[in-house]
Amino acid sequence: MAWAATAELAAAVSNAGGLGIVGAGNAPADWVREQIHLTRQWTDRPFGVNIMLMSPFAKDVVEVVLQERVPVVSTGGGNPAVILPRFKQAGIIAMPVVSAVALAKRLERAGADAIVAEGMESGGHVGETCTLPLVPQVVDAVRVPVVAAGGFADGRGLVAALALGAQGVQMGTRFVCSTECIAHARFKDKIVAARDRDTTVSGYTTGHPVRTLENRMTRQFQAREKDGATVEELERLGEGKLRLAVIEGDTENGSLMAGQIAGLVCDIKPAHDLIMHIMAEAEAIIARLPQYVQGAGVAHG
Amino acid sequence: MAWAATAELAAAVSNAGGLGIVGAGNAPADWVREQIHLTRQWTDRPFGVNIMLMSPFAKDVVEVVLQERVPVVSTGGGNPAVILPRFKQAGIIAMPVVSAVALAKRLERAGADAIVAEGMESGGHVGETCTLPLVPQVVDAVRVPVVAAGGFADGRGLVAALALGAQGVQMGTRFVCSTECIAHARFKDKIVAARDRDTTVSGYTTGHPVRTLENRMTRQFQAREKDGATVEELERLGEGKLRLAVIEGDTENGSLMAGQIAGLVCDIKPAHDLIMHIMAEAEAIIARLPQYVQGAGVAHG
Repeated sequence: MAWAATAELAAAVSNAGGLGIVGAGNAPADWVREQIHLTRQWTDRPFGVNIMLMSPFAKDVVEVVLQERVPVVSTGGGNPAVILPRFKQAGIIAMPVVSAVALAKRLERAGADAIVAEGMESGGHVGETCTLPLVPQVVDAVRVPVVAAGGFADGRGLVAALALGAQGVQMGTRFVCSTECIAHARFKDKIVAARDRDTTVSGYTTGHPVRTLENRMTRQFQAREKDGATVEELERLGEGKLRLAVIEGDTENGSLMAGQIAGLVCDIKPAHDLIMHIMAEAEAIIARLPQYVQGAGVAHG
Repeated sequence: MAWAATAELAAAVSNAGGLGIVGAGNAPADWVREQIHLTRQWTDRPFGVNIMLMSPFAKDVVEVVLQERVPVVSTGGGNPAVILPRFKQAGIIAMPVVSAVALAKRLERAGADAIVAEGMESGGHVGETCTLPLVPQVVDAVRVPVVAAGGFADGRGLVAALALGAQGVQMGTRFVCSTECIAHARFKDKIVAARDRDTTVSGYTTGHPVRTLENRMTRQFQAREKDGATVEELERLGEGKLRLAVIEGDTENGSLMAGQIAGLVCDIKPAHDLIMHIMAEAEAIIARLPQYVQGAGVAHG
């Protein structure tokens, strides 16, 4: 959620009882520091920073996060094993995002305090395994708490994640469509309008596939991939496109990062209302489940 | 589950309280009739037949199913809208397998009694959307009961499906690794040994992608796809390969259809024991969930 996950949203989520996360994305370290200060100004609850390890500024962002003693750090886009001990020393809770069991085990050994297991239905960078099969396999493989990510937008998903053995969920696409998210209204409207099959994955040939809503940008990108464009050409083609979508609201030429759950997101609400609604829905489902299991069946086919 | 889902397994599942399903696959109608008779011989409980609409024998299989008044029919590999009224007339419960919301709605209008919503983590033919985002979107779109499929192998998954609004789950890969399944021991052992990232999808260029365990066969197939092989060449390359794996136990040259949940399947047990274990696990989770929700959190990132 680079560009979209600023202090405004992080503070609102944390104030509502969630764990708000500032997305560092490809932003310079000074911007991240400013966002941390703003978040602290607007909330006294715990919050986190997501460090995108492929960012050219990743090293500097790590230093800022350490200096600022941010309560929680999550990492994406790579293997943070070498930096985990530094977070530990600083008393920072580290929860790397992984898309496979092997990396989850490796990072637990390296000192991760929790694992975010993210399925390939998520928006942005994706792995290969879907959330539903990934989460219980990660839960069985590690002892630290697991947070489920990819495909969550409501209380139904939260209860599903808890049933799979996760301790909570991470939601991205759902919170882009919050009042506090600074993303352009046209970006949010595209997510609200999206249906189940409106996302696509581009960049398999670059080794860093990304899920977004399908648009002119993804069609052009995928056509160039098919034509055998080099990784360098493709990287140039993708450069600045997320900012173009999130900040400028260019929904045709920008990169509209969103998950497959976009089809379920039908409104834009304050983060506080979203969290209250998700929790109330989850509690109602949990109260109803004992009746359900009587009639539930197992088919094979 | 063509070749693997015979009367032996269907009867065992139905006897244990599940809904056993005979997979017609590409088999001739006479074989399907024989399997129906055998299933009836071994169980007096309801059971089903899955009709693979792309089979050259699909038309004849439909006639057999109608003549035999099989209690439940599921369909895969296409759009069964034109044949649904015939099942309805015969008093047969029809539950087509779909991978997208639009087809679910169309088939409900055409008379489907239930919808099996199958995510792309499943073994065999796959769509694009993962189970976790697909199921609630289908649940919201139709009034008939929804069965969740793709990514299920235990009680955790069953409770997750119920939380998402499904009325039950369909499990394929899990029941291949049952004592009663006639699949070759080497096929079952490959599933038991599989880890989270051991499946792969082949056949995107044919328009009918299939998920299997990765092996020599999939590497060859995908290399030919990359080289621009025609659909006809690829179809010839795939012909008979599922039978080769399931019946002959050729795990290198056969098509080892299995879902991403294969990594969770670690044993071979009688179908009865599997179902009892799944139900007991589900009940235990449901009993524990009220405590979980107190500590559960929502993060965004």
